[in-house]
Amino acid sequence: MGKRFLVTNDDGINARGIAALQQELSRDAECIVVAPEVEQSAVGHAITVFRPLMVRKARKNGIVFGYAVAGTPADCVKLGICELVEGPVDLVVSGINHGGNVGINIIYSGTVSAATEAVILGVPALAVSIDSHKEVDYTAAARFARKMAAFILENPMPGVVINVNVPAIPEEEIKGVRVVRQGGARMIERFDKRVDPRDNVYYWLDGESTPSAPEEEDTDVGALRRGMITITPIHCDLTRYDLLDDLKKRVEDGLKR
Amino acid sequence: MGKRFLVTNDDGINARGIAALQQELSRDAECIVVAPEVEQSAVGHAITVFRPLMVRKARKNGIVFGYAVAGTPADCVKLGICELVEGPVDLVVSGINHGGNVGINIIYSGTVSAATEAVILGVPALAVSIDSHKEVDYTAAARFARKMAAFILENPMPGVVINVNVPAIPEEEIKGVRVVRQGGARMIERFDKRVDPRDNVYYWLDGESTPSAPEEEDTDVGALRRGMITITPIHCDLTRYDLLDDLKKRVEDGLKR
Repeated sequence: MGKRFLVTNDDGINARGIAALQQELSRDAECIVVAPEVEQSAVGHAITVFRPLMVRKARKNGIVFGYAVAGTPADCVKLGICELVEGPVDLVVSGINHGGNVGINIIYSGTVSAATEAVILGVPALAVSIDSHKEVDYTAAARFARKMAAFILENPMPGVVINVNVPAIPEEEIKGVRVVRQGGARMIERFDKRVDPRDNVYYWLDGESTPSAPEEEDTDVGALRRGMITITPIHCDLTRYDLLDDLKKRVEDGLKR
Repeated sequence: MGKRFLVTNDDGINARGIAALQQELSRDAECIVVAPEVEQSAVGHAITVFRPLMVRKARKNGIVFGYAVAGTPADCVKLGICELVEGPVDLVVSGINHGGNVGINIIYSGTVSAATEAVILGVPALAVSIDSHKEVDYTAAARFARKMAAFILENPMPGVVINVNVPAIPEEEIKGVRVVRQGGARMIERFDKRVDPRDNVYYWLDGESTPSAPEEEDTDVGALRRGMITITPIHCDLTRYDLLDDLKKRVEDGLKR
């Protein structure tokens, strides 16, 4: 029986990255796009609870290729798996994001959160990003996504999202593939303070800053910067297990009611 | 020198929970509220990048007690620490959330994400939630938040958010305090499909369902349900370290370019 993939992103249903992904993955599976109507970058794992989700069929040259949802990437995955896609989904692929998703910044990522949502719902998932905010060629990233999708189906890892980042360089210059941990680098924000015509203060977040620190090669940040494709297995158990025992002793003694 | 706390939430600046928190914590520290103008539940770690953040001073009986930000909880913490609060912040306290934040569902939580944002910015943080969506008495939760805030200042844990959940029962019936891991329970969603007056399909997420499975007493879900205050140390490194070596072997062999 053929495979069925749900393809989503956070750059919106009309982004070039998702089109490249759908085209390449369609060589192996039926691919249904369920993606946000408009760009949703930096929404993290937001879901929509206080208003309904409008949905329309998305067409290209008159042919339906999926659904546009007026919501977040996590909404798209929830609604796609629970309602829109007929039959079981074998894999959710999120991307190809315009801009890398590495280091601490992945917690802001709609692309990664869409994949996490899939895993919560019991469906394997892959997030794919390309490390550039400029116009780029998605070919190498799409090809690698196809390989990785096949790998995930052959090597099931319940509860795990595979987060892939591809450097924005010509395919032949890519220096290899590395399995790496999530790095600690984060963006150093600054706010641009302004005053509106009615004397109200407002602030623009300037999010295009550079990462805060150099990073080791065994992290996604470091390996990506060195021209490698990075693969990081992530999950959504945030517990600091290493602290549990010590904290248990100190808290349960110190704070007894 | 006195301590300075930034107090935030995701239920909005006028929520009762944040007022209770500010009142109780003010016994130990100067407390500046920086909170969303309107309720932001389930926004997760969303930040606002495509529009500016409007800010106004928030007053009660004519006295300024903080700032209302037309943004998300993570926005409030970023902007509060970087711009609004004068001088260093010793602790960010987020809450008291109306509704528990335990199990997998913490990844949707604006309350927890606000605390995570603080930790990313290098400031210790505490998230506090009370396990009820009905009108509740915040006294016990606020008192425990005060104890926990003092504990965190005495026991610095860089990079760690302390996630506290308090059962919604009278203080004298609370069965104790437990340090526990994040549970695996999640809400089982369903969507309510409707048709608008112009024949467009839309869906309401029904998020009030019950957790999916019974949970052990050593998880936040299980201990909270048994009437205990739960404390869970969490962080934002999502790496599945236990999989790195095996994946490295399998991927780097199998996918070599």
